[in-house]
Amino acid sequence: MHRYRSHTCAALRKDDTGANVRLSGWVHRVRDHGGLLFIDLRDHYGITQVVADPDSPAFKTAETVRSEWVIRVDGVVKERTSDTINSNLDTGEVEVFAQEIEVLSAAKELPLPVFGEPDYPEDVRLKYRFLDLRRETLHKNIVSRTKIISDMRRRMEGVGFTEFSTPILTASSPEGARDFLVPSRIHPGKFYALPQAPQQYKQLIMASGFDRYFQIAPCFRDEDPRADRLPGEFYQLDLEMSFVEQDEVLSTMEPVLRDIFETFAEGKPVSQTFPRIAHAEALRKYGSDKPDLRNPIEMQAVTEHFAGSGFKVFAGMIANDPKVEIWAIPAKTGGSRAFCDRMNSWAQGQGQPGLGYIFWRTEAEALAGAGPLAKNIGPERTEAIRTQMGLEDGDACFFVAGDPTKFYRFAGDARTRVGEELELVDHARFDLCWIVDFPFYEWDEEAKKVEFAHNPFSMPQGGMEALENQDPLTIKAYQYDLVCNGFEIASGSIRNQSPELMVKAFEMVGLSQADVEERFGGLYRAFQYGVPPHGGMAAGVDRIVMLLVGAKNLREVTLFPMNQQAADLLMGAPSQASPAQLRDLSIRAIPPKAE
Amino acid sequence: MHRYRSHTCAALRKDDTGANVRLSGWVHRVRDHGGLLFIDLRDHYGITQVVADPDSPAFKTAETVRSEWVIRVDGVVKERTSDTINSNLDTGEVEVFAQEIEVLSAAKELPLPVFGEPDYPEDVRLKYRFLDLRRETLHKNIVSRTKIISDMRRRMEGVGFTEFSTPILTASSPEGARDFLVPSRIHPGKFYALPQAPQQYKQLIMASGFDRYFQIAPCFRDEDPRADRLPGEFYQLDLEMSFVEQDEVLSTMEPVLRDIFETFAEGKPVSQTFPRIAHAEALRKYGSDKPDLRNPIEMQAVTEHFAGSGFKVFAGMIANDPKVEIWAIPAKTGGSRAFCDRMNSWAQGQGQPGLGYIFWRTEAEALAGAGPLAKNIGPERTEAIRTQMGLEDGDACFFVAGDPTKFYRFAGDARTRVGEELELVDHARFDLCWIVDFPFYEWDEEAKKVEFAHNPFSMPQGGMEALENQDPLTIKAYQYDLVCNGFEIASGSIRNQSPELMVKAFEMVGLSQADVEERFGGLYRAFQYGVPPHGGMAAGVDRIVMLLVGAKNLREVTLFPMNQQAADLLMGAPSQASPAQLRDLSIRAIPPKAE
Repeated sequence: MHRYRSHTCAALRKDDTGANVRLSGWVHRVRDHGGLLFIDLRDHYGITQVVADPDSPAFKTAETVRSEWVIRVDGVVKERTSDTINSNLDTGEVEVFAQEIEVLSAAKELPLPVFGEPDYPEDVRLKYRFLDLRRETLHKNIVSRTKIISDMRRRMEGVGFTEFSTPILTASSPEGARDFLVPSRIHPGKFYALPQAPQQYKQLIMASGFDRYFQIAPCFRDEDPRADRLPGEFYQLDLEMSFVEQDEVLSTMEPVLRDIFETFAEGKPVSQTFPRIAHAEALRKYGSDKPDLRNPIEMQAVTEHFAGSGFKVFAGMIANDPKVEIWAIPAKTGGSRAFCDRMNSWAQGQGQPGLGYIFWRTEAEALAGAGPLAKNIGPERTEAIRTQMGLEDGDACFFVAGDPTKFYRFAGDARTRVGEELELVDHARFDLCWIVDFPFYEWDEEAKKVEFAHNPFSMPQGGMEALENQDPLTIKAYQYDLVCNGFEIASGSIRNQSPELMVKAFEMVGLSQADVEERFGGLYRAFQYGVPPHGGMAAGVDRIVMLLVGAKNLREVTLFPMNQQAADLLMGAPSQASPAQLRDLSIRAIPPKAE
Repeated sequence: MHRYRSHTCAALRKDDTGANVRLSGWVHRVRDHGGLLFIDLRDHYGITQVVADPDSPAFKTAETVRSEWVIRVDGVVKERTSDTINSNLDTGEVEVFAQEIEVLSAAKELPLPVFGEPDYPEDVRLKYRFLDLRRETLHKNIVSRTKIISDMRRRMEGVGFTEFSTPILTASSPEGARDFLVPSRIHPGKFYALPQAPQQYKQLIMASGFDRYFQIAPCFRDEDPRADRLPGEFYQLDLEMSFVEQDEVLSTMEPVLRDIFETFAEGKPVSQTFPRIAHAEALRKYGSDKPDLRNPIEMQAVTEHFAGSGFKVFAGMIANDPKVEIWAIPAKTGGSRAFCDRMNSWAQGQGQPGLGYIFWRTEAEALAGAGPLAKNIGPERTEAIRTQMGLEDGDACFFVAGDPTKFYRFAGDARTRVGEELELVDHARFDLCWIVDFPFYEWDEEAKKVEFAHNPFSMPQGGMEALENQDPLTIKAYQYDLVCNGFEIASGSIRNQSPELMVKAFEMVGLSQADVEERFGGLYRAFQYGVPPHGGMAAGVDRIVMLLVGAKNLREVTLFPMNQQAADLLMGAPSQASPAQLRDLSIRAIPPKAE
């Protein structure tokens, strides 16, 4: 017989009754039922109930074992009586009567319970991650993560992509975030950088004549702690395609991502086709370039109804500034003064002067708008707004006024708030959409100059013609995001692979050809020697897993995460280096100055 | 029609004759046949011949294109005449008559030719790696690499392993080689280290209750340039299993690795079962713990035949030192004085006093040993040696004398030399074997103390009993290597998961429990809380790919390698960091001292 097990702890069934079996695993829990000991024996695969009765030679050992000891059990499979069947367990129709128990590894008193999973402080969970990972929820999340990633690989290969690993010790690249640096021993005073993303390498792979690249790619950004990003490293499903236009990237990846979501959605509906929403339209309708489409609220401009109206605040703003718009946030079922006042208070809490509203109710058998705004603009304009927004008795509408470029975020937050408060959002769904036509440039208010809005590697729509003749702030890029339930889960673009266009695009933000060569030397050089049109995207693996398993925190879907202070409490990293190590690397650590 | 292509450059067949098609790709080569232009158009998938005749509207553009330009071609598929069919190409029965050619990207004069692949200096190839990678051989190697890795993943999942990614920013671990360090910005004066291998993490994964782990794992060692290892990073197929003994690790992985080899061996025979050879036996038979079994030579000790013989040098050594042995290297077909003398000179070139030999020939119709040794020891002993070694007329035998622990390497080299010179080695084969029963400790001559021979994490055979009562230098470990054609391609062990045994094992090399806790804190802590028996191994991905594609150099199977000075000539890494970056990281670069 196998030294440790004839079956896993998930394998035994009624058919095995009478069999002599050997199991190994962790003592999940021990119960003493009047002298009879019940041990839930757990391994990676499942749980089997082991019984030791006082007549068994195993009883003496069974009495000594405690939670999380690792034991081997030899015994006989018995069918449970119908009243003791545990339908929550795959093995719930049987139990193993122990004849021999061997302790393979004892456990000291646990700093963190595995059974029952009560809340426990984060630092204890991270320091004893090997215990934390045995807990049912986390174990399941991590297994789901591995399955999702494996499924990604399988599906990507299924549509003709090839996985390539790109270097991890590479050059610093000015992609926005701070690099992790690695001192070179052989080249004193010089440093490698860990890749923030394999952006340049994947484009070089296309320039090297490969056609469809992907990688489950580790990425590194030395950022300050943020709730929605793990410090240090994270993973992207990174991909790139040659000889494609934007539409082909989207139509290739849409079914792949939809199928991944459907496979792991546990029955929740997933968007069958992903709407493509222009960036400007997303801001107008949802107040966000990451709209949560599970929220049915769509905003509309209702400026005309307030222009010249009796509501002097809005009318005055509109008259004084052509940029001013009034946006309406329809609130189905929100038609009570109490709710509207609550929203108004919330807005004030957000630093806004307030949130104007109208709500509709039937008074004296007639549908009428109520609230101060309705009174000020009169019934005709009120009715025009109701009609435009498709609202009815019992509904409300909120209004945000000003320069939309300044207020759209707040309007989006208000939309979210209204949707959540009125329970209009169906949380048991995965709603995906593409956001397209991102602006190529934006105005940097601090530097008082034009800057790249997102990715300097993107192809501007209209090409050289647009760069030369168009107001830069109106130029769009072939750039797109994929959004799920209000989270950006992927981002990509068709790349600007023309050296002339690249130089011109950088010129617009005040950088010279020399700057381009210095910053993107390898890539710029490659563009001189025959490069195919190409584009791609990168999807956030951690975020996708988190959405699919319903975790609230990235640490709940990560095997060995660092804490929010970028420390690995399990392994004790970062730590002091020895003087010899630093000498080898030609660096010196500078003690922080006392303040 | 698709903006860039209706077909790839490998797709068109005779059946497509008459079709209007669109292709995009690189100009592989242009030939002018009396006004008719032939363009070999190449993409990732293959090559298609494009023809432009002077009457075609495409001709004018066709005249301008040069090697490695990227073009789009619209044209009509025509069947080739039977005398112009190119059977080397999948598309060789057709050609495309161009009607329109669009230049998608021009190329400057090439610093490195793609067509024909002449030898080119390494630094140019690395700086223009995107061109180098377009060359047929390298492109094919890299594609093979991606397929081999994908196949590894598929097969590992097929036998129940799950892929987990382990952290790349982690703690320094004293595993032998030098760490790459990463300064922490948030914790001034502290450093992360890049993992030399995920050894501790994979053991922690077992302690966390997962069962069969694997990973195509990036590993990092800051070593001085070595011909057989790329500087910086390399990849391992890393795996670990719970509740196993050594035999199960070997018997699980043997079919996986054999099938990977068979899939990519291009018809070369692969060992169907891998012999398991004890470490001591490998040294005795092959003079190496990495024996090339394609070489049929097996050495044997023939000490007794020289003891007290007339060959006083050997006889004296044997009489004076009980450790002395005489090893015989049989050399089938090597029975000529010229060959024997050549081997003797080679040995002298290796710093040896020489290489004694006997060779056999038929003289006066009798088979007799020839050479000075035969003369000295006389015909009876000569014949006894011949019989023991199974040699015949026309064969030779070489002899190495002394303390085998000192000469075995040389004997192994001589065995290799003899096998190669006599062409006894069948190079068109993959011969794999396991080397088992490695010594746990070895004598450190410099430090004059016992040291771990290989992996301190390994389980000593005999456990605590052996550690307490056995001569440490005779203790074996449950440790094994996999060897293919003379290269170590994998290494592993059953782990020592008992805290007491671990402390004891370290004690023997002069380290205390506190040392163990400091060096392997996370792992040692985990061992206190219920850890399963476990073991695993790690296989060198780069080496396996290199063997399978028959490459001579790791850079020929690596996408973007650094050069031997650990510099990435393509991306310009390592490079200077800005003063602001160093300030952020609380480090200072120390300029190298002038000497």
